[in-house]
Amino acid sequence: MKVTILGCYSATPRTLNNPTSQVLEINNRIFLIDCGEGTQVQLRKHKIKFSRIKHVFISHLHGDHFFGLPGLVSTFQMLGRETELHIYGPKGIKEAVLLYLKLGNSYTSYPLIFHELTGAESEIILDDEKVTVSTIPLKHRVYTNGYLFKEKPKERKLNINAVLNYEIDKCYYQNIKNGKDVTLDDGTVVSNEVLTFDAPPSKSYAFCSDTIYKPDIVPIIEKVTTLYHESTFLDKHKHLCAHTKHTTAYEAGSIAKEANVANLILGHYSTRYDNIHDFKKEAQTVFENVHLAEDGKVLEF
Amino acid sequence: MKVTILGCYSATPRTLNNPTSQVLEINNRIFLIDCGEGTQVQLRKHKIKFSRIKHVFISHLHGDHFFGLPGLVSTFQMLGRETELHIYGPKGIKEAVLLYLKLGNSYTSYPLIFHELTGAESEIILDDEKVTVSTIPLKHRVYTNGYLFKEKPKERKLNINAVLNYEIDKCYYQNIKNGKDVTLDDGTVVSNEVLTFDAPPSKSYAFCSDTIYKPDIVPIIEKVTTLYHESTFLDKHKHLCAHTKHTTAYEAGSIAKEANVANLILGHYSTRYDNIHDFKKEAQTVFENVHLAEDGKVLEF
Repeated sequence: MKVTILGCYSATPRTLNNPTSQVLEINNRIFLIDCGEGTQVQLRKHKIKFSRIKHVFISHLHGDHFFGLPGLVSTFQMLGRETELHIYGPKGIKEAVLLYLKLGNSYTSYPLIFHELTGAESEIILDDEKVTVSTIPLKHRVYTNGYLFKEKPKERKLNINAVLNYEIDKCYYQNIKNGKDVTLDDGTVVSNEVLTFDAPPSKSYAFCSDTIYKPDIVPIIEKVTTLYHESTFLDKHKHLCAHTKHTTAYEAGSIAKEANVANLILGHYSTRYDNIHDFKKEAQTVFENVHLAEDGKVLEF
Repeated sequence: MKVTILGCYSATPRTLNNPTSQVLEINNRIFLIDCGEGTQVQLRKHKIKFSRIKHVFISHLHGDHFFGLPGLVSTFQMLGRETELHIYGPKGIKEAVLLYLKLGNSYTSYPLIFHELTGAESEIILDDEKVTVSTIPLKHRVYTNGYLFKEKPKERKLNINAVLNYEIDKCYYQNIKNGKDVTLDDGTVVSNEVLTFDAPPSKSYAFCSDTIYKPDIVPIIEKVTTLYHESTFLDKHKHLCAHTKHTTAYEAGSIAKEANVANLILGHYSTRYDNIHDFKKEAQTVFENVHLAEDGKVLEF
């Protein structure tokens, strides 16, 4: 599982800092999460093939999370895209993108499929043979969802010595990897546990931005491999959270601890801070395994 | 008069090339012309103070000319802007910007004034004590205007020796600079020509992008100091112009020659070309004084 941070700062684009966008590679799927202005250029810089992106997830309709979307949709058209593009985001996103295409008299010739979200509860919005994606209802100044990406449970690993020992025919191997027991010719049942090793654990990634501290997401993101959680402020500016509906680094660390996740990535830093390492220090007072998002950083889990 | 090219390539943003945007400084006014995605970052890179921009002119509603606008409007808000922002552009631009503000529940607290254009003839759209701005009707795939920026005629220069020689009181100086003759106490009329030198010539800038070769703009842009004219293609791809409604470098040179302008800037190059110097060579077969727009280039006239 690989996360490429294309941008991770809040508010306005700056010379060296891009607004929120990231690419998640999980189980051979590629997902673009949020699409602030400049995302196209960041995708090119990091050599991510545009054609591999088939699903875009937008958390909310603030500019620093979606103003790069109309341009990306247009660029796909100019590049001669033919395959479907699925866009998930709050109700309104379809009108937003289609108005810009209409004004430019430049509709797409590839299928552009919108999945507009309005729910207040977590729901599965994508479910294929490799991955499921669910919403994580967040609380911000506008309707906002985080997204939970989970690898489907993987096949158990064949214990080849055991299988050979029982002289089991190859045609049963797939059933065994799927967890089935085997009945031998003499009627003996060989338990699956004897014939296999545990499957490699399924990985999962939770993206939570933007939101006020919201501990009721903990059951949804429990034990994920990696949680990206916004931390716009340090604790010394905690008083700004109520009005702006953002989280401090300490609070992000608390969520990570309560949800018992393996890794926490912090991001969406306010541009008021010169040194983002203070965010790490603060979150680590409550949760150890903290990574700092930085534009262009690639994190593998 | 100073032109800063923030971006000058057509179609999609790329790692090193930005879509169209430029800043014109003329007679102490600053105008932003077009606003492709990434314009904010380019403004910062070139240290152009956001607060100095009070007027934005959008030629047409293709993404590479205006997808940076909602972000710029939002950033002005985040920076605490209080002064008016005037946006000139095709009908639809108001709906486009306001929808994005509405979706983000983030209206501006500064006055945002739209001047939506629908005319088919050149018209004066801004006229203050320093500058007039008129539209230049262009022909592209969607409704498009170029813009003509003209310094107001300047004051004549006082011939101080002549004025002292006639012992003319200082209270008449402003009238003399405005072109008035002076009647002396003995009734003699001293002609203004004797008392002044010619005013420095007023400068002018015509921005023409995007458009098919359209020689009927020549009377509007005649004798401008500097003409920026799109040249998306070289002559060898002239067959692409009719469908895409763009111009070749040769045609841009022809317009410059026919309009008897002093300088021509070429830009809006298709990204298919590796060497933009071929554009200059081609235009120079018909018009000598050709400059090449390049991202970040500053041209003074």
